[in-house]
Amino acid sequence: MIIVMKRSATDDNIDHAAQQVEKLGLKANVLRGAERTVIAAIGDERVEGVRSLESAPGVDEVMSVLAPYKLASREAHSTTSVVEAGSLSVGGNQIGMIAGPCGVESEEQLMTAARAVKAAGATALRGGAYKPRTSPYSFQGMKTEGLKLLAAAREETGLAIVTEVVAPEDVDLVGEYADVLQIGARNMQNYRLLEACGRSHRAVLLKRGASATLDEMLLAAEYILDGGNSKVMLCERGVRTFESHTRFTLPLATVPYLQEKTHLPVVIDPSHGTGHTSLVPAMCRAAIAAGADGLIVEVHPDPENAKSDGYQSLTCEAFEKVMAECRRVAAAVDRTL
Amino acid sequence: MIIVMKRSATDDNIDHAAQQVEKLGLKANVLRGAERTVIAAIGDERVEGVRSLESAPGVDEVMSVLAPYKLASREAHSTTSVVEAGSLSVGGNQIGMIAGPCGVESEEQLMTAARAVKAAGATALRGGAYKPRTSPYSFQGMKTEGLKLLAAAREETGLAIVTEVVAPEDVDLVGEYADVLQIGARNMQNYRLLEACGRSHRAVLLKRGASATLDEMLLAAEYILDGGNSKVMLCERGVRTFESHTRFTLPLATVPYLQEKTHLPVVIDPSHGTGHTSLVPAMCRAAIAAGADGLIVEVHPDPENAKSDGYQSLTCEAFEKVMAECRRVAAAVDRTL
Amino acid sequence: MIIVMKRSATDDNIDHAAQQVEKLGLKANVLRGAERTVIAAIGDERVEGVRSLESAPGVDEVMSVLAPYKLASREAHSTTSVVEAGSLSVGGNQIGMIAGPCGVESEEQLMTAARAVKAAGATALRGGAYKPRTSPYSFQGMKTEGLKLLAAAREETGLAIVTEVVAPEDVDLVGEYADVLQIGARNMQNYRLLEACGRSHRAVLLKRGASATLDEMLLAAEYILDGGNSKVMLCERGVRTFESHTRFTLPLATVPYLQEKTHLPVVIDPSHGTGHTSLVPAMCRAAIAAGADGLIVEVHPDPENAKSDGYQSLTCEAFEKVMAECRRVAAAVDRTL
Amino acid sequence: MIIVMKRSATDDNIDHAAQQVEKLGLKANVLRGAERTVIAAIGDERVEGVRSLESAPGVDEVMSVLAPYKLASREAHSTTSVVEAGSLSVGGNQIGMIAGPCGVESEEQLMTAARAVKAAGATALRGGAYKPRTSPYSFQGMKTEGLKLLAAAREETGLAIVTEVVAPEDVDLVGEYADVLQIGARNMQNYRLLEACGRSHRAVLLKRGASATLDEMLLAAEYILDGGNSKVMLCERGVRTFESHTRFTLPLATVPYLQEKTHLPVVIDPSHGTGHTSLVPAMCRAAIAAGADGLIVEVHPDPENAKSDGYQSLTCEAFEKVMAECRRVAAAVDRTL
Repeated sequence: MIIVMKRSATDDNIDHAAQQVEKLGLKANVLRGAERTVIAAIGDERVEGVRSLESAPGVDEVMSVLAPYKLASREAHSTTSVVEAGSLSVGGNQIGMIAGPCGVESEEQLMTAARAVKAAGATALRGGAYKPRTSPYSFQGMKTEGLKLLAAAREETGLAIVTEVVAPEDVDLVGEYADVLQIGARNMQNYRLLEACGRSHRAVLLKRGASATLDEMLLAAEYILDGGNSKVMLCERGVRTFESHTRFTLPLATVPYLQEKTHLPVVIDPSHGTGHTSLVPAMCRAAIAAGADGLIVEVHPDPENAKSDGYQSLTCEAFEKVMAECRRVAAAVDRTL
Repeated sequence: MIIVMKRSATDDNIDHAAQQVEKLGLKANVLRGAERTVIAAIGDERVEGVRSLESAPGVDEVMSVLAPYKLASREAHSTTSVVEAGSLSVGGNQIGMIAGPCGVESEEQLMTAARAVKAAGATALRGGAYKPRTSPYSFQGMKTEGLKLLAAAREETGLAIVTEVVAPEDVDLVGEYADVLQIGARNMQNYRLLEACGRSHRAVLLKRGASATLDEMLLAAEYILDGGNSKVMLCERGVRTFESHTRFTLPLATVPYLQEKTHLPVVIDPSHGTGHTSLVPAMCRAAIAAGADGLIVEVHPDPENAKSDGYQSLTCEAFEKVMAECRRVAAAVDRTL
Repeated sequence: MIIVMKRSATDDNIDHAAQQVEKLGLKANVLRGAERTVIAAIGDERVEGVRSLESAPGVDEVMSVLAPYKLASREAHSTTSVVEAGSLSVGGNQIGMIAGPCGVESEEQLMTAARAVKAAGATALRGGAYKPRTSPYSFQGMKTEGLKLLAAAREETGLAIVTEVVAPEDVDLVGEYADVLQIGARNMQNYRLLEACGRSHRAVLLKRGASATLDEMLLAAEYILDGGNSKVMLCERGVRTFESHTRFTLPLATVPYLQEKTHLPVVIDPSHGTGHTSLVPAMCRAAIAAGADGLIVEVHPDPENAKSDGYQSLTCEAFEKVMAECRRVAAAVDRTL
Repeated sequence: MIIVMKRSATDDNIDHAAQQVEKLGLKANVLRGAERTVIAAIGDERVEGVRSLESAPGVDEVMSVLAPYKLASREAHSTTSVVEAGSLSVGGNQIGMIAGPCGVESEEQLMTAARAVKAAGATALRGGAYKPRTSPYSFQGMKTEGLKLLAAAREETGLAIVTEVVAPEDVDLVGEYADVLQIGARNMQNYRLLEACGRSHRAVLLKRGASATLDEMLLAAEYILDGGNSKVMLCERGVRTFESHTRFTLPLATVPYLQEKTHLPVVIDPSHGTGHTSLVPAMCRAAIAAGADGLIVEVHPDPENAKSDGYQSLTCEAFEKVMAECRRVAAAVDRTL
């Protein structure tokens, strides 16, 4: 940690700040420059109250040197972790392909989608039974009934089930039916939920919050890992920016960046990442070329009548075409799909 | 709702889209322009699946006309609602002033802060017993013990207690001790929590998510109102932008905008909104001049040793000075403090 | 254009707004809904003063229906335009690969880079002679001497020269030496410069401003096209967002979006788009998979001693490897490189 | 400057990085921690090529310690500079109030506005003769004729003239008629224009770019100061964020932040900062309460027929009311208006 003193800092200020650093259990190196003095604090800076040092007299800024996460870091585990959950494997040479409708709406809708994505080569089925919705007046999901339909779809197709869990009290129930617990973007910093997922034996797909930094996402993963669950996949689903031609801005540089910093595998969601069906195929191909370990894509048999997210869903036919394109790109980066 | 057709849309596409509109229970007016056809859909567009229309063939874009919230809207209640909770009143002529430490750390810390803010003229005491923290390794709050200290502080000072609740299962417990349930920025779209607060009889301070739109904040409030709790205050606490000299960017235009759109009172949080102690006084004054109904400010007896948020906390002495400044600005806009 | 009236709008307000619409030469269709009245204005809404309608009494909002650009639109030209400039071709089946140093620093530096990128398969050489720099104390470029070195590099390698022009008065001079005039992100809305490039016969590479919308970029292109120069390439180089692990956020969905809206070819700049050398190769591959028509990449023989942008430059060896990877991805999307 | 080495950095990497630091004329202090080594580079880090150090083997990150600007810094001049230009004074106890139409449209429009803002107490008249417009099809301003009308308005009212200059070749001409040269947000990094204004003897109002950091704005000011012109005012006019209920997001914390960092006076533009007339009055009051040295406000005699910016212009009557409100707030912060 580096403490930058103000130009106007007195010797007393500098001594005091150095003492505060030592009080935190770190070693203080005072370096006096022509314009500014800096204090380099050596030791594990991930201790309580470190940033409050900015309130000490004469201190201008406190800059971190160490990454704030540990278990999620690449140093903790030098090869990429492979997360396995039923038919789904993410992190190995084969790219995991999770596809299906935004929400479970009916047996027919779900089974049609499940059969189609299976036939096209998907390795897991997505579908929401609990839908966190911006408006209280929107479709909130089929809940337990939806979970049962998902389990029935697995029964028939063999596809692992990925479905969202929105509250800690639901983790056990959802875990009974699902292979992967999805934590949505709005819940990325719902710490009780993270802790509950940390106690589950189910794999977890953790989505990035719409304005979360990657450090914050890795710290959210750290909550799960620290709870004892090592089966965590990270999912980039786009961030909120000034751009409005897409619903969110999908930063694919997240893929190589995370691969440098963490051993957790990385999944891309081009459906939420763009918000428009017509932009999804290009982003599927690009994600694979960037090195993503998996994709999660919304597929609906009848998008224009979907209860949610129709505008960003592929039809079953379009998904089949996307799979064919993605297979070729995967081969070009020495991966399989 | 307006459906903009693509230039290339055929007559069949237009007919089909119009039929879809009618199927949703709306009346379709087809307007053919030189370059584009638009369909104006008349009726209550807040129905399920409306946006999925973008997937219909030949449709380019669907634009909303009506605000998506109802109970929170200014039309539902033409005067600003006054929320009362113990010594705190927000929404009337007097500006509510909520002050206190980020987290409850000890009896001494809390009581010192409580007495100081009371003496300076605050009308409520803030202090977190449950702390949602980015890192699992950070101080997570004193929990029940913290709640008890808060209640003791109310006992002595008479100040209403504002404290955060982070999970639906805690709402009853926190409500036993607190006068106002605070929903933090990270939980603004934790719908189970919103629903639980909707069933509570305690007043709620709802903070804006760091990248939530104001429509999304109003829809979050709608969940609480729709649950039966009308005592909702909205709190602007800054949004995440490219700016890094402040921790968040505090958009004070939120105040007049919300006053046009909703009857719910508006509170400003200049501590999180700037992230730096030295910027807080100016933003307190500005918030009042902009017409805010309340402020929530972090005050700590010893910021540089605070377990959290020291860098953005005022000392007790600084708070007293800020109060004096704010009283003058309040008078200049015909309010009291 | 759609004019949404306030709920409180009177009949007089509605009549007045409709008259204002007619005064602008548009036809007003008044549609009265249960909650709101909207006026659909039919005709070419790209007329002066249209948005000032929002100031008319009772008007809530004015929403555009038509794209504001014409010559740049896909409707104006249904196939993608191929821009040719010496050895460079962008927009056809072959992907244009523009590579070279950020700035021209010396004959040796430039020639080493030029020979290396030529050998690796680049189709054009980039290099700045005029450097717009954030600080007045930074290296400002070799100017005319730099232009001469670039021309000498073309002489030897046959590579087309892409170099930045920063002021209208330089357009002729730069055009004497260069094959492509690059307009940098900071100058995307320097209209005098756009107009001067519109009068040039040289091809133009127009970079997106760091917070420009795509409509604004297309309107900037429209200035050039409207001036008579049809040889315009658009370049996505990343936008400014809250993300700080990359210098800018590179939204590759720009590629399919622009391909829907415009006939102008699209080039991606993964160097500025990420700001870190280690992230560049993945973004090169992803850009090609997304369908980009060209890439512009910073390559420097000795990045750690570069006068500018060393942190995001590839070495000559790294570039050769990237080219090999990109060739495979290009083949997977039926393009050549 | 702090160089953070990667965990995997070898002793050779560390030695090499330290040598590179010394080569730049700085003194290298190598500090070995448990997890990471950092090199603190002491000396003036504002030298060429510093950031390219990130390309040296084993280097993870380079962090600046010193502000990149010098002449603009508060250290260079400990009291706020007062900029005087005819009737306008900005930076002293009196708040400068610049008001008038977005663009000069006619003699009648300008004179009506000029008389009204003068009567209401404005100390300068704004009005654009050269209009940088997003679309080539929009009103581009009356140019020289507009300048003449502005000079005539000064003749009659005595108000100093603030008007935009969009190109270096216009600086002399505009300076003949105007008292203050305005550099618009889109030109904040048009360095030729900054340099030309640096050579002028006219005062300059420099607007923040819509996605410029405050360091970038101060470096833009540095270009002007370094050119010999010390009469620079900084203007916050809102930044581009995900928020869409306002056209830009107006961060008033810019005021106290800049007052800490620079001696240049700070002006707020609530018209562009909000983009909606109804939000302007509250932001005028808030800006003054925050400590702004001046305001620049769009006022038009007939906003709904304005050729540009009608949606964010106050009528003459509304401006008079805003002035009365602002005077009271100014008094509450011990300023005059």
